[in-house]
Amino acid sequence: MTIKYDKGKEEYKNWIIEETDFELENLNKFESVFALGNGYLGLRSSLEEKYITEWRGAYLAGLFDQFPGEVTELPNLPDPLLTEIKIDGERVDLSCVEVEAYSRDLNLKTGELNRSFIWEDSRGRKTKFEWKRFVSMAEKHLIMLKVNITPLNYEGEVEIISYLNGQVTNSGVQHFIEKDLRFIKEKNLYYLTARTQESQCDLAAAARHEFYKNGEKIETEAEIKTDRRKISRKHTINVKADQSYSFEKKVFYISSVDQELDSKAEKKTSAKLHQRIIKLVEKYAAADYDQLFKKHAEKWADYWEEMDIKISGNDFDQLAIRFALFHLIQMTPHHTDKLSIAAKGLTGEGYRGHVFWDMETFILPFFIYSFPEKAKELLEYRYHTIAGARKKARQNGYQGAMYAWESALTGEETTPKYGAVDVKTGEAIRIWCGEIEQHITADIAKAVFEYLKVTGDYSFIEDYGAEMLTEMARFWVSRLEYNKDKDYYEIKNVIGPDEYSEHIDNNAYTNYMVYWELINTADLIEELKEKSKAVYQKLKDKINLEFEEINKWRQYAEKIKLPEPDKDLIIPQFDEFMEKKEYDLSKFEGEVGSIVSELGWEEVNEYKIIKQADVVMLMHQLSEYFDDQTKRANYEYYEPKTLHDSSLSPAIHSVLAAKFDHLEEAYKLFSKGARIDLGENMKSSDPGLHSASLGGLWQAVIHGFAGIDVEADELKVEPNLPVEWDRLEFKIYFKGEEYLIKINEDQTEIKNLSE
Amino acid sequence: MTIKYDKGKEEYKNWIIEETDFELENLNKFESVFALGNGYLGLRSSLEEKYITEWRGAYLAGLFDQFPGEVTELPNLPDPLLTEIKIDGERVDLSCVEVEAYSRDLNLKTGELNRSFIWEDSRGRKTKFEWKRFVSMAEKHLIMLKVNITPLNYEGEVEIISYLNGQVTNSGVQHFIEKDLRFIKEKNLYYLTARTQESQCDLAAAARHEFYKNGEKIETEAEIKTDRRKISRKHTINVKADQSYSFEKKVFYISSVDQELDSKAEKKTSAKLHQRIIKLVEKYAAADYDQLFKKHAEKWADYWEEMDIKISGNDFDQLAIRFALFHLIQMTPHHTDKLSIAAKGLTGEGYRGHVFWDMETFILPFFIYSFPEKAKELLEYRYHTIAGARKKARQNGYQGAMYAWESALTGEETTPKYGAVDVKTGEAIRIWCGEIEQHITADIAKAVFEYLKVTGDYSFIEDYGAEMLTEMARFWVSRLEYNKDKDYYEIKNVIGPDEYSEHIDNNAYTNYMVYWELINTADLIEELKEKSKAVYQKLKDKINLEFEEINKWRQYAEKIKLPEPDKDLIIPQFDEFMEKKEYDLSKFEGEVGSIVSELGWEEVNEYKIIKQADVVMLMHQLSEYFDDQTKRANYEYYEPKTLHDSSLSPAIHSVLAAKFDHLEEAYKLFSKGARIDLGENMKSSDPGLHSASLGGLWQAVIHGFAGIDVEADELKVEPNLPVEWDRLEFKIYFKGEEYLIKINEDQTEIKNLSE
Repeated sequence: MTIKYDKGKEEYKNWIIEETDFELENLNKFESVFALGNGYLGLRSSLEEKYITEWRGAYLAGLFDQFPGEVTELPNLPDPLLTEIKIDGERVDLSCVEVEAYSRDLNLKTGELNRSFIWEDSRGRKTKFEWKRFVSMAEKHLIMLKVNITPLNYEGEVEIISYLNGQVTNSGVQHFIEKDLRFIKEKNLYYLTARTQESQCDLAAAARHEFYKNGEKIETEAEIKTDRRKISRKHTINVKADQSYSFEKKVFYISSVDQELDSKAEKKTSAKLHQRIIKLVEKYAAADYDQLFKKHAEKWADYWEEMDIKISGNDFDQLAIRFALFHLIQMTPHHTDKLSIAAKGLTGEGYRGHVFWDMETFILPFFIYSFPEKAKELLEYRYHTIAGARKKARQNGYQGAMYAWESALTGEETTPKYGAVDVKTGEAIRIWCGEIEQHITADIAKAVFEYLKVTGDYSFIEDYGAEMLTEMARFWVSRLEYNKDKDYYEIKNVIGPDEYSEHIDNNAYTNYMVYWELINTADLIEELKEKSKAVYQKLKDKINLEFEEINKWRQYAEKIKLPEPDKDLIIPQFDEFMEKKEYDLSKFEGEVGSIVSELGWEEVNEYKIIKQADVVMLMHQLSEYFDDQTKRANYEYYEPKTLHDSSLSPAIHSVLAAKFDHLEEAYKLFSKGARIDLGENMKSSDPGLHSASLGGLWQAVIHGFAGIDVEADELKVEPNLPVEWDRLEFKIYFKGEEYLIKINEDQTEIKNLSE
Repeated sequence: MTIKYDKGKEEYKNWIIEETDFELENLNKFESVFALGNGYLGLRSSLEEKYITEWRGAYLAGLFDQFPGEVTELPNLPDPLLTEIKIDGERVDLSCVEVEAYSRDLNLKTGELNRSFIWEDSRGRKTKFEWKRFVSMAEKHLIMLKVNITPLNYEGEVEIISYLNGQVTNSGVQHFIEKDLRFIKEKNLYYLTARTQESQCDLAAAARHEFYKNGEKIETEAEIKTDRRKISRKHTINVKADQSYSFEKKVFYISSVDQELDSKAEKKTSAKLHQRIIKLVEKYAAADYDQLFKKHAEKWADYWEEMDIKISGNDFDQLAIRFALFHLIQMTPHHTDKLSIAAKGLTGEGYRGHVFWDMETFILPFFIYSFPEKAKELLEYRYHTIAGARKKARQNGYQGAMYAWESALTGEETTPKYGAVDVKTGEAIRIWCGEIEQHITADIAKAVFEYLKVTGDYSFIEDYGAEMLTEMARFWVSRLEYNKDKDYYEIKNVIGPDEYSEHIDNNAYTNYMVYWELINTADLIEELKEKSKAVYQKLKDKINLEFEEINKWRQYAEKIKLPEPDKDLIIPQFDEFMEKKEYDLSKFEGEVGSIVSELGWEEVNEYKIIKQADVVMLMHQLSEYFDDQTKRANYEYYEPKTLHDSSLSPAIHSVLAAKFDHLEEAYKLFSKGARIDLGENMKSSDPGLHSASLGGLWQAVIHGFAGIDVEADELKVEPNLPVEWDRLEFKIYFKGEEYLIKINEDQTEIKNLSE
């Protein structure tokens, strides 16, 4: 097996993920699983050497650009990693030889990627390589790498060519216009500048090299070369057996969007980018890898102190939850409240860096309970992008704020209109989500209420929430369609969470969520009118809120068609669902999406084939609305029809299953969710990690097994540990106070740490 | 040695170039040396499998696009070659294993690329692969490839994934906006469409696959997949030992510039590109590789019948001259008079597909003597782009037509303003050629006279030449600077052919050429006034030509400063040349350009360091102006100071040396020129072939060793064969009649084939 979980010993036990063999076919998996980042920069963990299967990627949060004919995306930054090493002219390349003692690992505790191996060339000369790398949590502009080279049995010449390579693209798309390539000898640095084509953002990247022999700094001959979009520096060193030679490289990135986005920036500057990056390189010129790594690791220690979840009983589960937390923190734009977390974070070009409902529904709960202040900022992203949502509503003939299914910097809709070619028709599949997968506007509203419920932070409602909720309510009221015959409001032609059924009417999930949202928004705004008169008045003035409008929300809500449970307590997923044909799904359970590439899109739409939790999702979201019997009945009815072809699905099923004591099933689904990225499937993570699944995993543990919830303004802890676990320990925040919660098989301890 | 020249036997003796070993580091060399093309399409000979060192490239003549911030170039077309083959899941890859019986060769006689080898996988299963490929000379839109797979010792499953891959770029630059990806099952084809960003040219590419078992067509399971800009089809076949399985792929390209450029198009159509390409695929649907190859090879036979040069005495020289002719024909836009031949033809992205003086000065003579009708069309390119030259003159404050140093579709200046980073300063080197390397306007004028002299085709003068020459003369007259003190005209601040001296005054080459041009143009236009009154009148009306103007040309010419030979008969290359310091060049003679990356640009400018023939070039161009003694003296003075760091240089020196019986030296230089691309240096041809050097090689043979020239309206044949050769035979055209010329050591036979 190529991926192993038990490398960490003692203080690193259950902190380390290991790749034990070099396999060309698995590179993309590990580029994602081992991805590094600090929320400002994201870096796929490609190898320093070039390989034919590689998919290099580095991204800067919020630096979007739209190539003509495509949707906006995060441009792939000039690659900082590419390094060619030659031993007496022979290129170091792992794809051809049996490599000795190969191990690559990601240390979640310290955020460091390590790789070591002994390479034997065709002439029998052996060299030990030890690579290290981190993306600094202490200095967000910095990526640093180091290689330690030890010739084991020869004397010879080592050549190291290190690149800043701006020839990389997003699968062939080039976003950057090349500006300057320069090097400054006396400062020992080189840099490049570039500008995005459409968004006109400036970027600068700079690098600095240092060499050491047995730990002592040495000077080397360096030859600079430039090519189109590419600058390299070649060093040649004469080496001897059993001596150690180290190469350290610092790479910095800055962009013109930094100041615009950075709500916490020290101070604004009008200095030009290349001047700023030169300054940055010089600031860190004297510091070596170990020093800078120490500062970075300290930041990680702080995070773990705050958020670690300790699971006792199963090592993999312990590692898996840490893997989830690690990546969630790496994806978080800590430096700004103007950005959020994308469906793949900053780990790959999948979903183009766009933010989906994944954020509020799957990921946000972790932040609400663990980093409430960051949760607030993440929600603020939706406030800062409300202009885009208003625009989308107007464009579709509606009122208020209709949030984008896929959202980037401005909140405008960025869902592509076409996807892959359909196997049956030969034409590109039309993607309708940007137009009709509308439940996201209810999901965001739900998240605002959830944040309030758990944190009690009413200031968010005053500053942002009330306006957002009003605008979202206005959207739904304009969206609802009155059915005169039946005297109810319908929502026709939508897609629910289950995307294998398109153009459906009265999706249970959507309709219930809208009902719930309108009622609760009406309550909240009425309360605001009493509680915060000044804010209410300001809101009235700003967006013309009239009190009658609130009544209207309530009146409309009361008349929304809410699909009723049938005699077996089953709520139909949408109007015609029960009439659809059944389909034997067993052969498609192995590979995500295989059913579509086998049957074609139209046929999939004809059957009771469910991609992911829909009615089950509803039961999760509005848990208090459905009794346990109904939940159980629907879970049991829908789960077998569900392919879990979305990474969003298993964890949510797990939460529900845990709540009604289907513990074995809950654990099975938790395990399935835990393995989506971290598991042995070498093809599941190529274009990036599944951030919602990482958030879902937290929910499965905290909402599911630990049974954490807030009811009637009280923190509820009703644990239901799987038999595999004997202890669970974590901290959470509730209404501004921090609690340490320790759960044993037979005892639950809750300690208020803020008292 | 990796490159060998003796593979061809019997009818293919001295027709085949062979790569005998697979070496990752040599791929780019062979991509260029083995490049295929038909003047409409050019295809670098990358391998079907993907390798980390590859530099894939396919280009369509005249399909230019300008990426923001860069100069216009030929966009890299979606790659037609990429094919992944797996034997029971194991990827066929030559970079890791010792490959048995590897041989790849280009057959110059038939224009076919072959590759065969036996691949042994890690489980000891052996498979014989035989690849073939051609770019059709009979159907310009077609590239065809075939692989024959023979399992030698196993039964198993072979998977073939074939791509049309639009993710390729020009070193990271993406010119195309993606449009449709589609496949049409019932027609067994798939296609993609795209549009260039700036020039808004549409492109369509389509492919069709066929399978054969032991020569019989078979059906296979095929799975289509699409990704960004990429469409692939996967076939899975069960194979048995010693059976032969063939896969054939036809790829077609068409573009919206076709009709615009194609002066010989059958008829114009308004059909959409995708409709046209579907029709094209269907037209050839029934034909197999062998049938289509036959048609292609017949076209090549016609060319060879016409142009082959037979050298007896040295096999390599025979192969080398054929190599030159083969590529010259492949680079020639046979289908149009609106395009010319770029510095690298269609063999790579070096010089971005731009046309230089290389064309008229180095390449055109071959066409004038071998394909006079095509020579005329190639010259017409300068007529069709005269608007660009007029624009350049105006932009620089001059009159008439000032031709671009680098020219693309419109004739506007397309020289980049900056090049690589200077090693000394760390800043990008300013490229001045677009502004001040002005001799090209005299070179084009010279070529017009040369064409007229050899072909006697006065109609070209009437239709195009008179206008071109008038406009060029006007440019020079406005360009000349009057020196009152000395009472002469100067040309200050230029670059001559030797680009290692910039911003020089009174470059001998430039000044003499301008003088010659003005005098001859005056004579010609005066003659036209007498000979072709109607044409002269038309010209007068069209471009306001006044007879006094012609006198002015003559007056100015007579007063141009022409650097005089000194007491040793040496003509100074420019005003201050003789005061420059000498430099020991010996250490830089190995690697082209190494002097610049060692000394930096400024320092190179300070010495008597000559990149390429300059005064020697002048003696070649205006041979009749200088007596043999002067030629010899200058040759002997300048050659030792010349690095031949331009591929344009050796062949011209060779011509001169041959003329005054420095035969050994002439042969040495010929050999040097012959090896620029075809030789053993594996790094000289990466970004494409040196088309001027190919043309220069023809000149070394025909003008040099065969001593062909036209003097006083007579064909002159004064051979001077090197001792290595005992016979030389070729055909040429002179004034519309074709001659067969056979030269032995002691006899020259001239036969008029048109009589």
